[in-house]
Amino acid sequence: MAEKLFSDPDGTEEEILAATYRALTEHGYTGLTIQRIGETFEKSPSLIYHHYDDKDDVVLACLAFMLDAFEESVVGKEVERPREELERFVAWVTDATASAEQEEFVSLLTELRSQAAHDAAYRRHFTRSDRVFERYLETVIEAGVEQGVFRECEPAAVAATVVTLLAGVMLRQSTTDDDVWLADVGEELDHYLTQRVYR
Amino acid sequence: MAEKLFSDPDGTEEEILAATYRALTEHGYTGLTIQRIGETFEKSPSLIYHHYDDKDDVVLACLAFMLDAFEESVVGKEVERPREELERFVAWVTDATASAEQEEFVSLLTELRSQAAHDAAYRRHFTRSDRVFERYLETVIEAGVEQGVFRECEPAAVAATVVTLLAGVMLRQSTTDDDVWLADVGEELDHYLTQRVYR
Repeated sequence: MAEKLFSDPDGTEEEILAATYRALTEHGYTGLTIQRIGETFEKSPSLIYHHYDDKDDVVLACLAFMLDAFEESVVGKEVERPREELERFVAWVTDATASAEQEEFVSLLTELRSQAAHDAAYRRHFTRSDRVFERYLETVIEAGVEQGVFRECEPAAVAATVVTLLAGVMLRQSTTDDDVWLADVGEELDHYLTQRVYR
Repeated sequence: MAEKLFSDPDGTEEEILAATYRALTEHGYTGLTIQRIGETFEKSPSLIYHHYDDKDDVVLACLAFMLDAFEESVVGKEVERPREELERFVAWVTDATASAEQEEFVSLLTELRSQAAHDAAYRRHFTRSDRVFERYLETVIEAGVEQGVFRECEPAAVAATVVTLLAGVMLRQSTTDDDVWLADVGEELDHYLTQRVYR
């Protein structure tokens, strides 16, 4: 999913993060080593140690880089079509015809997020990550209320609920063998938003 | 959370599973070894190898034992008070005043579930686990519809949505530093159930 973001790295640090992302998609977090990052990095692997202390340090920098890019792409932008924007965000996650590439990305995120169960630095990242997505959705919903296309609701509460449901969707997608439940959840989420948000 | 279940093990295998559960709560999945299970097991540690191939074999048996116990406690039982039962299930997860013990249990489940992102045996377990909880909630909701205390709705779809949202709640609880979102999510879930299920 982040291929495009990493396709044209700017400077050595971004080149290292791009190599880290490639190595993560290939080996997963468990199989990741600085040496394997070095194998997909075009300059001297010793440069990696010059910039980062260890594997987790560079993985966290890679996660922060992706989150920063998302945040920069949405913060301060005017929300012109709130309903389309909310629907597109939800569809990205509940679309049952997701590509193999997207499934791998979601699995990788699950593996990385689970580090946060016992590692404070990962916990800080995913705390910030959830807040960024909540604030983004809150802004979209507030814009819809102001423009009169959404009902008077509690934007922050709806945003927290959508972020939580989508976290559950991604967790289930990456840790179970079936997705018969996915269409049902997509429809119920649509019921909820129709009742609570859409006019 | 499973302390009570493991408080009176019946036979060697259950004693091993009880020791595994204790070792898991103490060391987490990453820190777990057969030797550490042996340290909390009252008989000869070599018995563990007699019954189980490796660490994952005994962890999966422990998970299956807990899920079996839940399933046996609900399957075939008549649902006398559907609303109370649904509310109690939801409250267990969205209760912000959860004990430290419950928080540790949820963290442990997150760590174990994340194994399913790259291990088919864990994926099989959590596929079954989600289905057991979905079927349980479906039965409760169907009973409420039949008794006329719930609206005509789609019990399977509502059950899938509640299980998914609660998976998201548990994931966020165990991988972030704050829970300011939790009360909002609890209230929105109540809105959704009031609209869709409760009369």
